[in-house]
Amino acid sequence: MTAETVNRFLQEVYPQLNDEFAAYSVVDVEPGHCIVRLDASERHLRPGGTVSGPCLFTLADIGGYACVLSHVGPEALCVTTNLNINFMRKAGPGRIDGACRILKLGRSLMVFDIEMRTIADGLIVAHATGTYSIPPKQLDRGFGTSSDEVI
Amino acid sequence: MTAETVNRFLQEVYPQLNDEFAAYSVVDVEPGHCIVRLDASERHLRPGGTVSGPCLFTLADIGGYACVLSHVGPEALCVTTNLNINFMRKAGPGRIDGACRILKLGRSLMVFDIEMRTIADGLIVAHATGTYSIPPKQLDRGFGTSSDEVI
Amino acid sequence: MTAETVNRFLQEVYPQLNDEFAAYSVVDVEPGHCIVRLDASERHLRPGGTVSGPCLFTLADIGGYACVLSHVGPEALCVTTNLNINFMRKAGPGRIDGACRILKLGRSLMVFDIEMRTIADGLIVAHATGTYSIPPKQLDRGFGTSSDEVI
Amino acid sequence: MTAETVNRFLQEVYPQLNDEFAAYSVVDVEPGHCIVRLDASERHLRPGGTVSGPCLFTLADIGGYACVLSHVGPEALCVTTNLNINFMRKAGPGRIDGACRILKLGRSLMVFDIEMRTIADGLIVAHATGTYSIPPKQLDRGFGTSSDEVI
Repeated sequence: MTAETVNRFLQEVYPQLNDEFAAYSVVDVEPGHCIVRLDASERHLRPGGTVSGPCLFTLADIGGYACVLSHVGPEALCVTTNLNINFMRKAGPGRIDGACRILKLGRSLMVFDIEMRTIADGLIVAHATGTYSIPPKQLDRGFGTSSDEVI
Repeated sequence: MTAETVNRFLQEVYPQLNDEFAAYSVVDVEPGHCIVRLDASERHLRPGGTVSGPCLFTLADIGGYACVLSHVGPEALCVTTNLNINFMRKAGPGRIDGACRILKLGRSLMVFDIEMRTIADGLIVAHATGTYSIPPKQLDRGFGTSSDEVI
Repeated sequence: MTAETVNRFLQEVYPQLNDEFAAYSVVDVEPGHCIVRLDASERHLRPGGTVSGPCLFTLADIGGYACVLSHVGPEALCVTTNLNINFMRKAGPGRIDGACRILKLGRSLMVFDIEMRTIADGLIVAHATGTYSIPPKQLDRGFGTSSDEVI
Repeated sequence: MTAETVNRFLQEVYPQLNDEFAAYSVVDVEPGHCIVRLDASERHLRPGGTVSGPCLFTLADIGGYACVLSHVGPEALCVTTNLNINFMRKAGPGRIDGACRILKLGRSLMVFDIEMRTIADGLIVAHATGTYSIPPKQLDRGFGTSSDEVI
């Protein structure tokens, strides 16, 4: 999948992207990494006039999602299982680019990290590491495995 | 600060809360812990029909913010420095309550964790641990310390 | 598995436990949670005279391992995939108990958290959240799945 | 501080480094980053014959410590406040190098990440992100601030 097809897919499955998430986009997708962007405006700010934590988390999550989508394809229902984010510098309104790379792509888990920098000055605003769970292929599934819940 | 005054303060400083974050609220604030709520509807869902990661992150972040606000007061500009979240079960539309507690309240850092459960069945949907940075008191500040940037 | 059988198994598979890890033990194992202990002495201290980060990490990791062992059994080769730890207070030599509980036990992942407190004063020294990967059952495995590496 | 002076300092303040941590060393220290090494042998393995989580955590922690030491100096009592680690691939006995870099060096916090790779094949074994707390300078301290405990 290219950045364009990932964006189109995201807009299709996330109707919110046309509204409150319209400021997020996938700028580039390559094997093993991608670039995602937040064009931050007033609505993304928290007290102190800086881009809020949830907005940067969303950018990180979209980065990981674009990475896993581009390798696994849109039919698989991949979900985030863990995300750890460090907020390092304040960022005002403007563009923030997230450079996301796959640290490991296994059969059932994809681990990634992402560095988020303001385009204006190139400083790191936030850094995140996360894991996406990749569901087993339909053919591999036995009967009765629609849920992975034991407890 | 009580749940009511925290909610009022949040609505004041976060104009977004009156719009896209209207589904989030602080239900209870006690010394050392608080309860926050997300009343999840269609707009909070991701592909698969489950409440999205960014929405649960937002709930966790509001929980930590309500905890630090209630102890440190609204004048201090506390910011999240780290948040680690594990997503454990899918949750459909409906109420999710986050039980947040302070693990440590130091002079410069507040560490908290939060368990997020669907009210419908009481199962844990997600769990997060995070840190808020508490700025030094105005009186303690010397001149020229508006930023803590060295590099 | 009981605390005793878990301890015996750990000593068998971890020859180190008889030597440098002799200070660690499993105190209690119940369905869904366990108690692990570090009896910290000089060798566990770092500059400042406090129990070191690696020692507390080890305690957290043993807690998660005892939890997953007691449910999944010793034959499965469960491994830690992620661990996030916050260090909150300094602890001198003495006993530290870790109360570990399972937040989710799925088919392929077990998520846990653990609170580590000094027995002397009951204060939280550190808190961790982690994930163990549970390998698919031998019978479920197809051919050629000895590794989950794709990239 | 150079790699040599950092190693000498570590051996001085950590008597354990001469014994159970003898396999760890600082290979290179530059402004903003450093390389640390674990020469893994039998004692560092867990069931399955792979380098254990606590050993990789220790490598990550030493990487962050060498980074903060080289900038802040040995007199300050810097401590880890948070460390998040993802384990990605199994590593047998042999050398593992950790490339550690400072993401932010503030007045009171240093944030770093570290990639740990086996020298044999260059694959990422584990990745960690962490935070060191830097104590305020002696001169900046008022009276009675020896502890930052409020609760």
